[in-house]
Amino acid sequence: MNVIPPKDINLVPFVSVDHMMKLVLKLGVGTVLNGIAKAIEDDFRRWELFDKTPRVASHSKEGVIELMPTSDGEVYGFKYVNGHPKNMKEGLQTVTAFGLLADVNSGYPVMLSEMTILTALRTAATSAVAAKYLAPKGSKCMAMIGNGAQSEFQALAFKALLGIDELRLYDVDPVATEKCMQNLEGFGFKMTACTSAEDAVEGAQIITTVTADKQYATILTDNMVGSGVHINAIGGDCPGKTELHKDILLRSDIFVEYPPQTRIEGEIQQLPEDYPVKELWQVMTGAIEGRKAPEQVTLFDSVGFAIEDFSALRYIHGKLKETGMYENLDMIADPDEPRDLFGMLLRASVANPDLPSPAL
Amino acid sequence: MNVIPPKDINLVPFVSVDHMMKLVLKLGVGTVLNGIAKAIEDDFRRWELFDKTPRVASHSKEGVIELMPTSDGEVYGFKYVNGHPKNMKEGLQTVTAFGLLADVNSGYPVMLSEMTILTALRTAATSAVAAKYLAPKGSKCMAMIGNGAQSEFQALAFKALLGIDELRLYDVDPVATEKCMQNLEGFGFKMTACTSAEDAVEGAQIITTVTADKQYATILTDNMVGSGVHINAIGGDCPGKTELHKDILLRSDIFVEYPPQTRIEGEIQQLPEDYPVKELWQVMTGAIEGRKAPEQVTLFDSVGFAIEDFSALRYIHGKLKETGMYENLDMIADPDEPRDLFGMLLRASVANPDLPSPAL
Repeated sequence: MNVIPPKDINLVPFVSVDHMMKLVLKLGVGTVLNGIAKAIEDDFRRWELFDKTPRVASHSKEGVIELMPTSDGEVYGFKYVNGHPKNMKEGLQTVTAFGLLADVNSGYPVMLSEMTILTALRTAATSAVAAKYLAPKGSKCMAMIGNGAQSEFQALAFKALLGIDELRLYDVDPVATEKCMQNLEGFGFKMTACTSAEDAVEGAQIITTVTADKQYATILTDNMVGSGVHINAIGGDCPGKTELHKDILLRSDIFVEYPPQTRIEGEIQQLPEDYPVKELWQVMTGAIEGRKAPEQVTLFDSVGFAIEDFSALRYIHGKLKETGMYENLDMIADPDEPRDLFGMLLRASVANPDLPSPAL
Repeated sequence: MNVIPPKDINLVPFVSVDHMMKLVLKLGVGTVLNGIAKAIEDDFRRWELFDKTPRVASHSKEGVIELMPTSDGEVYGFKYVNGHPKNMKEGLQTVTAFGLLADVNSGYPVMLSEMTILTALRTAATSAVAAKYLAPKGSKCMAMIGNGAQSEFQALAFKALLGIDELRLYDVDPVATEKCMQNLEGFGFKMTACTSAEDAVEGAQIITTVTADKQYATILTDNMVGSGVHINAIGGDCPGKTELHKDILLRSDIFVEYPPQTRIEGEIQQLPEDYPVKELWQVMTGAIEGRKAPEQVTLFDSVGFAIEDFSALRYIHGKLKETGMYENLDMIADPDEPRDLFGMLLRASVANPDLPSPAL
């Protein structure tokens, strides 16, 4: 990656929500999903280079606020993200996020970005990248259980990367399904609103579970999962929140992002701590096999990992010049003489004669 | 604290470097130092309420990038801060920082702020608060060894909170001392440029060491520290970086912010892990005594702790309305219907007919 510090080093490019939407529209949502997916794959292939720590979480009664840092030795990135399931009832987002990239050599930030939309894009791109290696060859039909904020992004990523063009949709709230179908109109899917999760999985080669309840739930039971299916389990992503019946896990080959984190947050929190799982990055480097046989049930137990955010930020950073979709923030105090921070304040006083002169 | 989410909840008030300087000038640097000091004292008195974790550090050959989160259960705060000693030679700041406050109940950010200047203010305010409890009564004269970016802030905080009006200044680079004296002209100090550290400590009741070299240094040796002195040791703040000879530590009463962090980063990294130290917050609550006797040598082994940043951010947040020194950032994606994040993107497309329509 080429980190170009801005000419005026005190200025940090900032990608607002509005700029992020325009950047995605300008480049095209498929192009962006493919671009982020490629960045994720590139970074997963050099997985061992990265600083990896489980996220730093601050839990409260109502939710969690997390910081997810990582670094490849040249670039440092972190994401701030909250998870507050009760927010939706108050008209707020369950998850909001923003992130930052910085130059490891100087410690100076090089980009600040909204990440609510970007997280939705990277989560979908990660799922689709995983499915490229794990889903049955020639998959065309995906069941999607849970039709909330992440659902359209998942559908589009699976179309862009795998050519999925049939969706079987189910949500406990039919309004969510209706919204999802309306939003995806014109993207070339054959869509069916289903009456139950059982109905939705009928004939699907890929099953995506992406529900939001913060509880142990059983969105899928063992009898619903036929042989040869790939399960893309997105919704189980914190302690106490799972979507799959344990028996499904026991007959699947389970692929995860970062085992120490997934064992705490993923579906596999239901299994013993030493239960064997496979690491997705090793599939990408070719160190281990992805799907081996047509009858194999594969499971991507996705919880989201810092490197995916890093990849997504890196992709966006690379598109700033081309799209112009950013503004500069005056975020870094940069006196001409580094030791003269206080002098900068004094000079600001001279430049602003309407403000009181500094005195004690 | 009163966290008032902005009316437009997608907008996050941002305090730029320029706004921070103007805010400080508008309110007066003494008022701001006193205000931050009060916020720190208030928060230290309710120390046990806070989430406390050592900072999350990402080390590289050239420096470190750290995240410092904390929460009092109602408000969450974190600071991003780097430390790159080699930066100064390249005309960059050794330390730059920014920070954020968020509402624990919703997880939504309520303020983003530059913190390079604010960190300088809070570090100085913390030192002065500590000295209020630890320095000899009626102290008038402070030696300051190291006259870099933090020095003027230290001097002003000690004047604002303790009435220090005589400074004895020394730096290995006389240019730094000259800069410091020029900047402090007009603030009512009697200042002496000294020829050595030995010279500087002559007659001072308080000795502040605030040098920047990333190494084990011996800025003060035992024979330089007379009885009854208070040492305010700022510069030793990461593993491998100390300023005081071990013998000084052995005859001082040592006060620290958060022992698990100070034992790694502070002067006391030179001492056994179980060497007794006192916690500053307990002095403030009255649980333990500060200075007990005139001949006692007291040492504040300062490394900087997340709660001080939290206090400083909280103070600034409380001054936004009064000063108007902020701008709103479009940082949080906030669709009218929380589950309709993708629909927001579609509506942005309708609103921007010059951009391509979303399609795959």
